[in-house]
Amino acid sequence: MKKLNVGMIGGGFMGKAHSLAYAGMPMFFWPAPAIPHRHTVVDVNEQLAKDAAARLGFDNYSTDWRAVVNDPEIDVIDIVTPNNTHAEIAIAAAKAGKHIICEKPLALGAEQAKEMLEAVKAAGVKHAVAFNYRRTPAVALAKKYIEDGRIGKVLSFRGTYLQDWSADPNSPLSWRFQKKIAGSGALGDIGTHVVDFARYLVGEITDVNAMTRTWIPERPIQTGGIDKLGTVKSGSNDVPKAAVDVDDEVITMVKFDNGAIGTIEATRNAWGRNNFLTFEIHGEKGSLYFNYERRDELQVCFADDPSDAKGFRTVYTGPATPYGEGLWPIPALGIGYGETKIIETYDLFKAIAEDTEFSPNFNDGYQIELIADAILESAEKGQWVNIEKTAVAAK
Amino acid sequence: MKKLNVGMIGGGFMGKAHSLAYAGMPMFFWPAPAIPHRHTVVDVNEQLAKDAAARLGFDNYSTDWRAVVNDPEIDVIDIVTPNNTHAEIAIAAAKAGKHIICEKPLALGAEQAKEMLEAVKAAGVKHAVAFNYRRTPAVALAKKYIEDGRIGKVLSFRGTYLQDWSADPNSPLSWRFQKKIAGSGALGDIGTHVVDFARYLVGEITDVNAMTRTWIPERPIQTGGIDKLGTVKSGSNDVPKAAVDVDDEVITMVKFDNGAIGTIEATRNAWGRNNFLTFEIHGEKGSLYFNYERRDELQVCFADDPSDAKGFRTVYTGPATPYGEGLWPIPALGIGYGETKIIETYDLFKAIAEDTEFSPNFNDGYQIELIADAILESAEKGQWVNIEKTAVAAK
Amino acid sequence: MKKLNVGMIGGGFMGKAHSLAYAGMPMFFWPAPAIPHRHTVVDVNEQLAKDAAARLGFDNYSTDWRAVVNDPEIDVIDIVTPNNTHAEIAIAAAKAGKHIICEKPLALGAEQAKEMLEAVKAAGVKHAVAFNYRRTPAVALAKKYIEDGRIGKVLSFRGTYLQDWSADPNSPLSWRFQKKIAGSGALGDIGTHVVDFARYLVGEITDVNAMTRTWIPERPIQTGGIDKLGTVKSGSNDVPKAAVDVDDEVITMVKFDNGAIGTIEATRNAWGRNNFLTFEIHGEKGSLYFNYERRDELQVCFADDPSDAKGFRTVYTGPATPYGEGLWPIPALGIGYGETKIIETYDLFKAIAEDTEFSPNFNDGYQIELIADAILESAEKGQWVNIEKTAVAAK
Amino acid sequence: MKKLNVGMIGGGFMGKAHSLAYAGMPMFFWPAPAIPHRHTVVDVNEQLAKDAAARLGFDNYSTDWRAVVNDPEIDVIDIVTPNNTHAEIAIAAAKAGKHIICEKPLALGAEQAKEMLEAVKAAGVKHAVAFNYRRTPAVALAKKYIEDGRIGKVLSFRGTYLQDWSADPNSPLSWRFQKKIAGSGALGDIGTHVVDFARYLVGEITDVNAMTRTWIPERPIQTGGIDKLGTVKSGSNDVPKAAVDVDDEVITMVKFDNGAIGTIEATRNAWGRNNFLTFEIHGEKGSLYFNYERRDELQVCFADDPSDAKGFRTVYTGPATPYGEGLWPIPALGIGYGETKIIETYDLFKAIAEDTEFSPNFNDGYQIELIADAILESAEKGQWVNIEKTAVAAK
Repeated sequence: MKKLNVGMIGGGFMGKAHSLAYAGMPMFFWPAPAIPHRHTVVDVNEQLAKDAAARLGFDNYSTDWRAVVNDPEIDVIDIVTPNNTHAEIAIAAAKAGKHIICEKPLALGAEQAKEMLEAVKAAGVKHAVAFNYRRTPAVALAKKYIEDGRIGKVLSFRGTYLQDWSADPNSPLSWRFQKKIAGSGALGDIGTHVVDFARYLVGEITDVNAMTRTWIPERPIQTGGIDKLGTVKSGSNDVPKAAVDVDDEVITMVKFDNGAIGTIEATRNAWGRNNFLTFEIHGEKGSLYFNYERRDELQVCFADDPSDAKGFRTVYTGPATPYGEGLWPIPALGIGYGETKIIETYDLFKAIAEDTEFSPNFNDGYQIELIADAILESAEKGQWVNIEKTAVAAK
Repeated sequence: MKKLNVGMIGGGFMGKAHSLAYAGMPMFFWPAPAIPHRHTVVDVNEQLAKDAAARLGFDNYSTDWRAVVNDPEIDVIDIVTPNNTHAEIAIAAAKAGKHIICEKPLALGAEQAKEMLEAVKAAGVKHAVAFNYRRTPAVALAKKYIEDGRIGKVLSFRGTYLQDWSADPNSPLSWRFQKKIAGSGALGDIGTHVVDFARYLVGEITDVNAMTRTWIPERPIQTGGIDKLGTVKSGSNDVPKAAVDVDDEVITMVKFDNGAIGTIEATRNAWGRNNFLTFEIHGEKGSLYFNYERRDELQVCFADDPSDAKGFRTVYTGPATPYGEGLWPIPALGIGYGETKIIETYDLFKAIAEDTEFSPNFNDGYQIELIADAILESAEKGQWVNIEKTAVAAK
Repeated sequence: MKKLNVGMIGGGFMGKAHSLAYAGMPMFFWPAPAIPHRHTVVDVNEQLAKDAAARLGFDNYSTDWRAVVNDPEIDVIDIVTPNNTHAEIAIAAAKAGKHIICEKPLALGAEQAKEMLEAVKAAGVKHAVAFNYRRTPAVALAKKYIEDGRIGKVLSFRGTYLQDWSADPNSPLSWRFQKKIAGSGALGDIGTHVVDFARYLVGEITDVNAMTRTWIPERPIQTGGIDKLGTVKSGSNDVPKAAVDVDDEVITMVKFDNGAIGTIEATRNAWGRNNFLTFEIHGEKGSLYFNYERRDELQVCFADDPSDAKGFRTVYTGPATPYGEGLWPIPALGIGYGETKIIETYDLFKAIAEDTEFSPNFNDGYQIELIADAILESAEKGQWVNIEKTAVAAK
Repeated sequence: MKKLNVGMIGGGFMGKAHSLAYAGMPMFFWPAPAIPHRHTVVDVNEQLAKDAAARLGFDNYSTDWRAVVNDPEIDVIDIVTPNNTHAEIAIAAAKAGKHIICEKPLALGAEQAKEMLEAVKAAGVKHAVAFNYRRTPAVALAKKYIEDGRIGKVLSFRGTYLQDWSADPNSPLSWRFQKKIAGSGALGDIGTHVVDFARYLVGEITDVNAMTRTWIPERPIQTGGIDKLGTVKSGSNDVPKAAVDVDDEVITMVKFDNGAIGTIEATRNAWGRNNFLTFEIHGEKGSLYFNYERRDELQVCFADDPSDAKGFRTVYTGPATPYGEGLWPIPALGIGYGETKIIETYDLFKAIAEDTEFSPNFNDGYQIELIADAILESAEKGQWVNIEKTAVAAK
């Protein structure tokens, strides 16, 4: 069985998730298409890098990502760093002929994403963007229903991603609130996951009409450099503050190329919503509803059920649903965040092993950046913005 | 105790609901502000009118609404007829000095609504539009929380009204699908309830940006004249069809005068959603969620709850919440459609008895028509439309 | 259309509910089998009785229930008084040849219930016990599924009735906590509703094995004589207390004559449960779940659904489900407590008009008293108790 | 950092789960108390063992569990084999001085469990029984609430474990339906998890009163020897069948030493329930509800909340709740089955490193076997059975 050496750039929260997936993927999907080997992890200083290797099970560590990218032993580069570093690393990795998986959003904007896409196409390597949520088995089941025609032609899509970890004005000004590092705010961080759902499940988005708001205009400056999401204690009132220059909330209407319409909303100011990533899809013959907070479940209603027994079914994913053969032996044993990453890793290594296209890839990442840019432009201008369709989005 | 004679124009589904409220209101709210007496009911022919009187408990019946409107014994005119007849009846009733409750939407459009408003203002009578859903105790509780500052300044509002009773292309072309009778489709029929929620709970809507769609372009012509909503059997394929000229679905973004933003969606093509009238409100200090399908409950999250016990509370309305003294003695004994109408009747008769303003009244009805017209204009033009604020909306 | 004069003994909370049903029944079910006419209401003193008549829409009032029971104009006696008075009134009414509807539980125990049953049988009148919850449309739908074989042979039943209105030790010692008036505590007040569900949906209960507990051994003595359930403010610590001599909680295992098994739990000490009347039924071919707090819904799972679309369906009752023709025109418009009483009234007046048996009747009420007595005996002895089957339970 | 070598006996579904936990634990809990090293895995034949090593990341494999148990390099023996083999392996491992984690239920009955307990006590090794569900963060949060007195004295407990993977009469006769291998049926397989919850959250169980049923008396003989739970396709009607000699369903009433009462139900014949492991706990000052199918959530109601904002809170576990520092950075990112095993591994390796007691250990496993034996005895005799308290249950 083929082994592929991974060089992972970044050792934070996402590094943990990816490492678990590298360790666990063959346990779930066996025979594995290829065995991921945790070869080298990179972090910003010696101590962090050494610690990350020990913690995450990598054989080696480094503080020099360029060296790792160019290490001939490495087959796959995994980019789990802040958004502003993705392009440089990915382009270098492509030039070095490495397959690449890059955290989302792909880039700080469409222009940068286009360069990355051109680099991987020129290099002929496999490329993946880590919109892992579409790999939740319940989301994959929704995709299957739609492809099988079980809810008919899709009419409308309503997607949300609501969180509250930064709803407190005293939560720190991490890199996620700084445009130069993050590119955008709720839009890029979480809204793009909904855009990925919309494209995956419904079709290409052609037009957007959006509003953005920054509800908390300034936040306490973060002293430690590390992104800790909601785990950081709120700053005291004495801590100096600086301006937030990205969106806290984005709302957009969307039009799809197949005639469907919809809305997307992403906010980090929704008290009580933790990871409320949802979609509701109305088709001519049925409806779907999904909420990641209850991710083992897909709700589906079929129009042709008898009138006295019609209603949303709560289907728990398991052995009979997508990826079920490899996962847990009965439904509701429990899909966690880890499992979404394990499935993502499986599909990526399968694509590498079988020389097929992984999706979502840099094509998709680029298209999503185009959509995100259009959303920001629309919000600024207060009008509909049309999106250039640049690439056939593999699904 | 004062008795007020009601003349009810229309004896269909809404007539049933209002009649139950007239009978039941004093049973729940005692001493009643005034006793509604079911004096005369009007329907389109002798048989229907006679039947309605017997069924709904009216002393008299008539086929001549003008006679009833001008009957000196009548104190209150209740208009429960299709939308296109509201204006003529209401204006005549106002001229005759009667208090008026009119089903929603108030009119076929803002122009007509304005005439109605001017008529009632000139006459000095009490006027009410029957957006009864805001009288669900859980909605009134949401209002109370907001007024008491318990969720802080409102940032965003997301409201939906999703149904499926006409999602079948063979469901008949009732008056609700004809512009000349209904004025608009999902927008006027159900979307205006969400607009009423938005204005009641958040504030005045200043701008809209909308899309509408007619998913089912033609429907079987209805032979019987009566509106039966979902109870009508689907037509066979042999029945001749005619065009639908109103919207099946409307989506709009909204801006409020206090800086909040939001979305409203109404559709009758959402399989599995029966009466899915919902709102989610995010404030600086908390959030609210309501779904009329589970109308005994309000979900509320308070930001200042301890971190290990924070989350949406499911509060069942009862004696401790608004209108609770008059309703059932313990929570979850059961609020149905009837109770919303009983509360509406209570508030209206109290306003009459105490000579105060009922809300929502024709001011509100007119403002909602302005918003609805702006939504249609926005959908047609594909751009933001600003709404003239014409009246101080009593709440 | 035939009119039947009702004499209602009692003007409290249940009197309100029944009065609404008398007024509303023909509005919903038309042509009505017979028109209930609110003839005379009885209460304990002149002022209360007069007030009740005005409030509840009765033509006359009285403080002398015997006179009303013997009034030749009266056709139906409705008993909505505390449990200890049921027998005397019902037996007198039977002797006077009146049809009878009596609130639950039928009596203070089986012996008393037997006398009542014998009286109505001797008199040949119609008799009903007001276990109204089985008339929730979703419960009637469950019954239909079971009768149609859609979940196969029933294996197990789990029913609960959980409340919290008296979970506070300072809530007053109303008649519901006094054995001489109530007969038993949670068992009679709410547990019998679950017993009614069990018999209605599964079959006759043959054996019970129970535990009871009185969690709050004494409560503040109530100064006003009226039963107010949860609306009464907690007594202060100064109020003298007296002993509670009934159960706060009862748990029982049950065996059915058809081989099914189950559990029943009733408690008034379940903080956060308001009217949590539920059942879960497992059959060979499917399952059912119902929770009255969300009473518009029945959950049903069919074993023969395809493996990738199997799960509980949330069916909202409406026009396509039992009683739907008469109720509201679309699902989820809203079933409240009132509707359950309206349906009960419809079925009772239909039984009177058509001279058929209403169910649950005094046979059922007696059988339920036998079961309740057996539960108390079992709890005391700590062993299984077999229940004599005394009558064919009409369903 | 100390490394502990694990010898795992068994390479099936549970082996996968444990292996993921060995790989992932240090990624989540860092610095780890000790690093689990996957040293050797044992399976029934060379091919399976070799495959398991490759798949699950063990350095070595073997078909000789005795050799592994006695391998001086091994520190911890992990027993993930069918129930009938636990005792022999565990006793041998104890004699060899190895720390032991054994899958639940501990043994085929109390007698066997007692021998195992005596062996580990004599050897002075650490011992654990893998009732992993109590390590769901939401269950640990429930424990914390109770210990902190936030719901007051516990009055009643209602626990269920409902599944449907073997509700089909054609699902195969795996070892789980054979008494000589499994000891009991639903009781041992899933009911003991509820017993573990009851003891963990409420206190020691002193008395039980139970019923058991075998709903499907015979099942198709399984040709492959491997336990696949629900993944096995239903047998055809041609396959020969053999008798099931264990329970499909068990219901028991329980009494606790602190005065609380309750019920426990476990069944594998509940269509639509997949892994419906729930508890509801009523205390004097609040209530708790947990459903593993929605395991990120704990429902809690506090009696002292204001009357207009009282109700169950849906708390999503995360950084602010037990184990939160080590898990995912925001609530609802997703707890799966894997995380429960990762936490279990963390606590076990911490107990080993710090020389403290792990719980639940063989004391608990033995006590649970006593309770399970009492349940079977009670079901057979039809009466209450008292349980000897044999050991102080560490919690």
